[in-house]
Formats: sequence, C-alpha cells, structure tokens
Amino acid sequence: MTGSLNIALDAMGGDNAPEVVVRGANIARQRFPNVRFLFFGDEGRVKPLIARHKALAKASSLQHTDKLVAADERPSTALRAGRNSSMRLAIDAVQAKEAAGVVSAGNTGALMAMSKFVFKTLPGIDRPAIASFYPTLRGESVMLDLGANLVCDADNLVQFAIMGNVFARTVLGIHRPTVGLLNVGSEEVKGHEAVRDAAAVLRATSMPGEFHGFVEGDDIARGTVDVIVTDGFTGNVALKTLEGTTKLYAEFLRRSFKSSLVARIGYLLARPALNALRVRTDPRRYNGAIFLGLNSVAVKSHGGTDALGFANAIGVAVDMISQNSLDKIRDDFARFLAGNPTSPQVVGL
Amino acid sequence: MTGSLNIALDAMGGDNAPEVVVRGANIARQRFPNVRFLFFGDEGRVKPLIARHKALAKASSLQHTDKLVAADERPSTALRAGRNSSMRLAIDAVQAKEAAGVVSAGNTGALMAMSKFVFKTLPGIDRPAIASFYPTLRGESVMLDLGANLVCDADNLVQFAIMGNVFARTVLGIHRPTVGLLNVGSEEVKGHEAVRDAAAVLRATSMPGEFHGFVEGDDIARGTVDVIVTDGFTGNVALKTLEGTTKLYAEFLRRSFKSSLVARIGYLLARPALNALRVRTDPRRYNGAIFLGLNSVAVKSHGGTDALGFANAIGVAVDMISQNSLDKIRDDFARFLAGNPTSPQVVGL
Repeated sequence: MTGSLNIALDAMGGDNAPEVVVRGANIARQRFPNVRFLFFGDEGRVKPLIARHKALAKASSLQHTDKLVAADERPSTALRAGRNSSMRLAIDAVQAKEAAGVVSAGNTGALMAMSKFVFKTLPGIDRPAIASFYPTLRGESVMLDLGANLVCDADNLVQFAIMGNVFARTVLGIHRPTVGLLNVGSEEVKGHEAVRDAAAVLRATSMPGEFHGFVEGDDIARGTVDVIVTDGFTGNVALKTLEGTTKLYAEFLRRSFKSSLVARIGYLLARPALNALRVRTDPRRYNGAIFLGLNSVAVKSHGGTDALGFANAIGVAVDMISQNSLDKIRDDFARFLAGNPTSPQVVGL
Repeated sequence: MTGSLNIALDAMGGDNAPEVVVRGANIARQRFPNVRFLFFGDEGRVKPLIARHKALAKASSLQHTDKLVAADERPSTALRAGRNSSMRLAIDAVQAKEAAGVVSAGNTGALMAMSKFVFKTLPGIDRPAIASFYPTLRGESVMLDLGANLVCDADNLVQFAIMGNVFARTVLGIHRPTVGLLNVGSEEVKGHEAVRDAAAVLRATSMPGEFHGFVEGDDIARGTVDVIVTDGFTGNVALKTLEGTTKLYAEFLRRSFKSSLVARIGYLLARPALNALRVRTDPRRYNGAIFLGLNSVAVKSHGGTDALGFANAIGVAVDMISQNSLDKIRDDFARFLAGNPTSPQVVGL
C-alpha cells in the first residue's frame, strides 16, 4: 500500500462515545502511520478530545453534526430520519470517495441498513453478511453470518462461503483456508435442506480454499476449519455462546484460586502464564465485525468496547482495504459463477 | 417412591458397550437400591460382565438378542429392520409395562424414531424434544430442543417451554423455574417469526414458572434462566459450542501451566481448587439427554461416555420416573390449553 488511506469514523456511536472512538483512533494512528481519520460528530464534544493528541489532530478532520442514531432506534427509522446523523455522514463520505471505509460502534441494525442502502451489494451477492474472527485451539478462525440474515437459503450460504474465504486470506493471512458448513452432524444426510443443498454446491465447486464439509458446534472453538459458514440466527447464538462460556470459565477459575490460601499462592506463581491466556482470549483482540458483500468496507465495533478494542476494529477495516479484499471477492465470485454453470445462483441471474 | 422400579437398558448401544453399560448400571445400583435393571443384548458378552458384580446380578435380568442398531444406521432402516435389536427390545419392555423407562447410549436418531413410534407423543404435543442440563455460573440449567426438530414453529417452541419447565422442577429441583427463548437480541422486535410468535403466546400464558422473555447466546453459560427454549438446530450447535469452548479453555489452561517451571509449581499448589473446577464442568455429570413429550421415559446417554457418565444417564431416568414428570407435563399442558383459548394450538386441535 502506498500513499495515505482515509477511514471515516462515526464519533458518536457506542456506549462510551465519543471518548473511546477518539482514543481508539489515536492507538490505531500509532499502528498505521499512513491512515488519516475523518471524524463525524458533535464538534463541541469531539474537538477537545482530538486536541489532546497532537499527532492525531494532525492526521484528522472533523465534520460537525449534532444528530446521531440512538442505540435502540429501529433500522427503518434510522434510514429514513437519520440522514444527517454521524453514522450516515461517515457512510456517505465513503460513498463520495473521501474515505476508503467506515467504522462505527453504534446501532448494528442501523449501520447495516444504511451501509446496504448507500453502498449496495457486490454483483451477484444477494445479501451482505456479518463476519468476525475469534480465538481457537489452532489459532484464529472466521465465522459468518453473525446476525444480518436470520433465515438463509442454500445460495446465501454458498455466497457466505466465498466471502468468508476471502476474509480468511486477507485479514487472517491464511494462504488456503478450509471452509466448513455448521450443522448438527458431520454426515451428508444430516441437517435441513439449506445446509444440505449448500454442501452439494460447495462440494462440486472449485474455490481458492478447500471445502471441508459439515462441522459441528464443538468444531468452532477447536478450529477445525478456518471459515465457519452458517445462517445469522445460529451464528449469532454460537459466537455469543463461545464468548459467554469463555467468561464463565474465567469466573470459575477466579473463584477456584480464591478458595484457599494455598490456591492463592499458586495463582501468584502461575499469574504470568495465566495472563498470556487472558490476552489470548481477550475479546478486544477480536473486536471488529465486517459487513461482507457490499461495494465498500463497513466495520462494526462492539458498542461496549474500550479504546484498544476500537483500535482493533479500525485495524480490520485497514486490513480489508489495503489487501483489496473487495476486488478479491468480486473475482472469486465471478470465477465461481463461470465454473459452476448449473448452480442455482446462475439460473437466478 | 415405594417398591422397586425397573429400568430397561440397551446393553449394546454406545462406543464401549456392553462394558460401560454394565459397569454404569452397577454404579447406579449403589445409588438407587430399589432399582432393577433389565438388560437387552448379546448373552455371551453381557452375562459374564454382569456376573462380576454379585449385587448387580441379583438386581438384574437379561434378555438375549444378537441383533443391534449400528451407530451409523439410518433411523428409518432401524425402525423397519431393527425389531429384534437390543434397543428396540428395551423400548418394547417399557411399552409392555415391564420397565418404567429406557436408557441407551446408541444411535440417537434410531432411539428417537423407535421411541416415538412405540411410545407415541403425549396428548397435544406435536413433536418430542431432546433436553439436557448443563453447568452455569449460577448452578444448572436445561436446554431444549437439542436436535430432534431442526425447524420449529411457534407452537413447537411453546410446547418445549412447558415441557422444559417440568424438567427443571423434577430433575433439577427448581421450585419456580424461569424460562427464556433463545434469540439474537432481547428486544421484542428481534428474531424471526417463530420466536416472536412463541414469545407473544408465552407472555400471555400462566405457566407454573415465569417467562423471562428472550435470552442470547451468552445467557446460556451465565445461567440467566433455568430453561432455554430453542429449535433443534440452534440448540444442538449452542450446546456443542459450550462443551467445545469449555474444552478449549481447559486446554489453554493446561498449556499455560506447563509454560514455565514457576507456573508448574503454581499449578501444583492450586491443583485441589482446580480439581473442583474440573468436577464442576465434567461432561459426565451432565450426561443423559431426555426425550420429552413421549408417553414414556427414554434417556439417551452420550455414545462415548464411561461408566460414571452412563450411571448419571440412568439417574436422569430414575428422577423423571420417580417424580411423575410425565403426569406433570400432561397436567401443565392441559392447564395451558384451558387457560389459553386463543392459542394457535387450540385452534389446531
């Protein structure tokens, strides 16, 4: 990547906005010296925060708006009435080529509705999906969809497989990612129609990665495959179950270490090693869900994250942009369509 | 409970049958002195195993068959061709009132198909569900369905809620269980039609427990509610995700403790406390999934469990039977129908 790269930031989105957004941008600035930040938000609140960081102030611009999308606003309302909101102005800046991607910690449904409305989906992609990566026993894997499409047909799942594959190559740096379809068993006869039909198409397809077949819930944390494909209902529940169970285990562990004096001493000795574990499973490391399948890069940060987490969400956007991920999705999808003339998608075009 | 209680056992089901089944029964016999065991399986293999335990031999009978249901057999094949299998004979013994319930570690789909065919569903229940309990931060909760019904409508989910409530009262001993519907968000507008419609019915219903509303994936391990209701696809994935993540964390922990000499010493000091954690999350403790909604008690043990795990599956059957759980489901469901004249279920009857 040469030259500078602009990222549009919704300064008012998230539980601790605009503080976390500005401090997160400042961390990201140190990591990515060639990135410039376009903030959108309330000047009276955002400007003094940016001014605290001299280098950030130099690398930033701020466009004022006193409108924002509320956390509980319906996506349809946000789309209709939020045209001057900080979220929408950040999206519009990308569409106007002033920035290469947008990051927001605000209302997920509104961000998806607005991004889809403004950016439109890539050619041949019916619906965008939300994708994120997470820690496994082997390293890191990506899962999609995480909630954009609660009910999916076989075509949707096949498209998610292609997009997830590109994400694994560009953001996780995996040369030849393996892809698995989430199901209730690994045998071909298992599951409902959508997963069985999607598996049949993927088995007959040449992808840049490898189709592993069906995977089950326990394969998610095990890291059996690099990309896990599922509908948005199941994916949302599964990723939150993984996060919740990690927290549960950490809490059980904390209680165990506090249960006796000897256990406490043991904890003190093991602490450096345990801190490595904490870092490895730190949800801030995995912050930044990307909306895949749109003509531009939109990244959603957790609403409750801190500055480090927000900086990581910016990092996901930077990776996607600097690796030309969207071009890769376009190319792979065109190749898939050309090589699979009997796929249902082609019939539908 | 007075007098004795007979449990029919499929001696040939499971990865390590018949050894694990016989040794599991021997552990259960010590816990439940008034239980008698009816074994079904290959006499040449099972009889010598039972003979090793004198007290068990006294409390047991054995009916010979050299037929069994293979682990990879299709449910439809098992139903048609498995009439003399150890699994089917155990089920038939319950139907003939020779036993009060059946336990098998064999093929789940075959056990469900046969149990449903022989026992039939309770009045008003459209489809049986698979339910199991698991450890949470607060204690223990139950989740259903875990894979019997991959696609569910609102009626199915409402019926699962009533059945899961009875399970929580009888097996977990919770006086007034709280019930949550698994969804991708907690607000009323979230989710697909089936969960929104089911929530509307449950909100308007008087149950012996309390309807909490929607819960999310991270509420599963947190123990936000005592009963989690969902379709079989999502439930299967979520429970396996929880189990897989627990294993992942334990493995991360093991590696951390081995990473340095000081960490190893810390581990040795903390070991007694950590063992308590291991016991708390031991999957054998939570072995025994029940098929709820049938006219008799059928319990499925994990195929790969050991004797202790199999004994716990027998324990679930004994609890269900001795607490008259099926009568409670019948009563609660009749009361639900009487009190909810506008529910879709009533219209359908």
